[in-house]
Amino acid sequence: MEKFDEYVRRYERKTPKSRRLFSRAARVFPGGISHNIRYFPPYPFFADGAKGKRLHDVDGNSYTDYWMGHWALILGHSPAPVASALARQVRNGTLYGTTNDVSVELAETIQKLMPAAEMMRFSSTGSEATMYAVRLARAKTGRRVIAKAIGGWHGFNTTLMQSASYPFEAEEGPGLVQDEGQYVESIPFNDLEGSIKVLDNIRDDLACIIIEPMIGTNGCIPPVDGYLQGLQEYARKNGALFILDEIVTGFRLSLHGAARLYGLDPDLFTLGKICGGGMPIGVVCGRKEIMSLADPVSVPDKQARCAIGGGTFSANPATMTAGLATLDFLKKNEREVYGKIDRLGGMARDGLGRIFAEAKIPCAITGTKSVFMTHFFSDSSQQKRQVSNATDVAMSDKAALGRYHMALMAAHGIFFLPSKMGAMSFAHDEGDVKKLLAATQSIADSGILGKAAQ
Amino acid sequence: MEKFDEYVRRYERKTPKSRRLFSRAARVFPGGISHNIRYFPPYPFFADGAKGKRLHDVDGNSYTDYWMGHWALILGHSPAPVASALARQVRNGTLYGTTNDVSVELAETIQKLMPAAEMMRFSSTGSEATMYAVRLARAKTGRRVIAKAIGGWHGFNTTLMQSASYPFEAEEGPGLVQDEGQYVESIPFNDLEGSIKVLDNIRDDLACIIIEPMIGTNGCIPPVDGYLQGLQEYARKNGALFILDEIVTGFRLSLHGAARLYGLDPDLFTLGKICGGGMPIGVVCGRKEIMSLADPVSVPDKQARCAIGGGTFSANPATMTAGLATLDFLKKNEREVYGKIDRLGGMARDGLGRIFAEAKIPCAITGTKSVFMTHFFSDSSQQKRQVSNATDVAMSDKAALGRYHMALMAAHGIFFLPSKMGAMSFAHDEGDVKKLLAATQSIADSGILGKAAQ
Repeated sequence: MEKFDEYVRRYERKTPKSRRLFSRAARVFPGGISHNIRYFPPYPFFADGAKGKRLHDVDGNSYTDYWMGHWALILGHSPAPVASALARQVRNGTLYGTTNDVSVELAETIQKLMPAAEMMRFSSTGSEATMYAVRLARAKTGRRVIAKAIGGWHGFNTTLMQSASYPFEAEEGPGLVQDEGQYVESIPFNDLEGSIKVLDNIRDDLACIIIEPMIGTNGCIPPVDGYLQGLQEYARKNGALFILDEIVTGFRLSLHGAARLYGLDPDLFTLGKICGGGMPIGVVCGRKEIMSLADPVSVPDKQARCAIGGGTFSANPATMTAGLATLDFLKKNEREVYGKIDRLGGMARDGLGRIFAEAKIPCAITGTKSVFMTHFFSDSSQQKRQVSNATDVAMSDKAALGRYHMALMAAHGIFFLPSKMGAMSFAHDEGDVKKLLAATQSIADSGILGKAAQ
Repeated sequence: MEKFDEYVRRYERKTPKSRRLFSRAARVFPGGISHNIRYFPPYPFFADGAKGKRLHDVDGNSYTDYWMGHWALILGHSPAPVASALARQVRNGTLYGTTNDVSVELAETIQKLMPAAEMMRFSSTGSEATMYAVRLARAKTGRRVIAKAIGGWHGFNTTLMQSASYPFEAEEGPGLVQDEGQYVESIPFNDLEGSIKVLDNIRDDLACIIIEPMIGTNGCIPPVDGYLQGLQEYARKNGALFILDEIVTGFRLSLHGAARLYGLDPDLFTLGKICGGGMPIGVVCGRKEIMSLADPVSVPDKQARCAIGGGTFSANPATMTAGLATLDFLKKNEREVYGKIDRLGGMARDGLGRIFAEAKIPCAITGTKSVFMTHFFSDSSQQKRQVSNATDVAMSDKAALGRYHMALMAAHGIFFLPSKMGAMSFAHDEGDVKKLLAATQSIADSGILGKAAQ
């Protein structure tokens, strides 16, 4: 690992201010961060600006960014049409605290692009949106059990903090009361038969199946043909709701979301990230008869109404403005944007696959459209290189992935959040992918990945 | 009620565009809004801008705003130092997705002002912050039961959606699984003996008491002497944590929060609203030994670590920048800001009390410092006019309060969110309070309030 130490030293040499900031941060934040995944050793760099595809740090370094704000920034950082609209808006109110016209325009825009959003409600985070979605499902069905995928990530809300991180069968840590998790069951992603076996045991009390169409934070895994459709059919047949969590995939896999791409028609679905244009947002959307259970006007009695937020910042004009500017741009430039980012995603997957194959570094490349991820395997004799669920990802050599991402940062000015998938934005171009591939070649040649490094 | 109908017609005449927008909104949002409290009959006006103390609507009306973005905007809407910093920031990245220097500065600023914040974590909403606070308390104590006040409001998260709205003893509507509420107990606010009676029953499994120092959304009720101190003492004695929810009161009742004002030393506390400078924020703060349970660096094992977020938008540079600009201004102008807003609050409470007393309209005025609220009573012979908890508020004549607030909107260009308390900002002045009092006099004279109106 001498070679890898050289990369780390190189990172440390170019980030002295970040190191000092991190020691201050560690005194005020547990672990020095406000989101666990943002820590990586030896310490994360501290950003002080971002524009287009570039992220800048306090030491004057700049990085080509493939993390892109948790994959939210499909047009890049502060793209001109969004930034200009936002800069005007922040001088004209960021929090009216009452209804506003832009929220109606944004909702109507979403509705036109995703007709399954017969009605919707804006919240401020994805965690809130998924929490409200399952609450609505329980209200609609009068049932209690929620089924989710093993390794499915739906945010930090209490209800859905189950089988969210490896080891998936273990509790998600102290502070979550076990009884509160008794109504959540986890199904194996991409295994319809196995999933139905679990679902059959809870069928009579099954309120909903909530699922990411593509496993996102736990590994960038698209669905196999028929899996999501089979779950939807099962829910329909058995009086449960089918909820698609499109917080990552909405406006990412297509302008009309994963639902359109995979021919799904969810009862409820959630959005976030892209539709906030880089500002905090969550959206719970779905069929009118379900959403109406939350209507304070037609259901004034609190005991009959499903209590969902909302919140102080919901539908705030800054988020609404940024979201609308983003979706307007995507609508007007649909072919150009998705044509480009999907092509770049394909180039990256193909190129990375070729490089690692030639270097005989055992790995699998997953993803679809504009997202991609590399999974290394420490045992080169291991037969199974297929990654079809979050457990496969958890079994991969995460340490090698961390070394790869650190080397990209240290020596090549390329940023992936270590161990997370990458995403293309409209600000990236073919030259960036070529640089990513050249950098990867150099790192593969260095011997810090794969068996030789162990 | 003929007189009141005139006010409503006047409101309708001046808000035709809002009426049309509301009918569009009602097709995309349940109830036409994204937060239940933002609906009021006949329909809410739609804001399209805000500056200083003024809120502007799509029909060209403007209102002196006492709602002030859910009481978050202590400096008014888009105050120059905050708006300028934000306008620069939104062109330089709104979501780095990694750590940033401004978050450290904001955290250190909070820590200096509120030393009980030995460590903290930023989230994006108050609902998230309170959810994480009780999760940390359960993790720290290994106990399950959470005590909260009857009518205490801690956001829409599943755990704390108990006794949150009247009738307080009833479930908060369908979709919340009853078993999930079995570990929440509610205590009577401002009644220490009664509270201790409830607490004694659950003492051995009591993880924490979480409480707003002043009942906020359910009635603007400051604590009686000794109540909060008694709860804190009870928690300390019995191995439970004392959590102060300062989302409303932090930087509002004083620059150092309600904790300083009432001489409290909470184990954990939550912030939001003001410290985000008008942008989405929540903060969970507290003692290092508790906060460290969430540290991903020193506690890498997920089964030992308390899993709190975070989230995509946590510590985003737009919120951090707006929050820091706001707290910097408050620090530099502490005496001027709090001197002014507290004086205006006192003027409003005194003036309103005098007007309604002279008009023989039975009511109570509550509040402290810069916040204030009127509670009407329909029965003028009713002896009890004291409002000391959320049940007293629920028993008051909410319809009369709604009429008062509608009349202020319709005829006087003054906005309170109907049935919610008002808050002064640094942008308000004595002339505004005089106008509020003159408008109130005219409405009192109109006979739409109090017994005569029934």
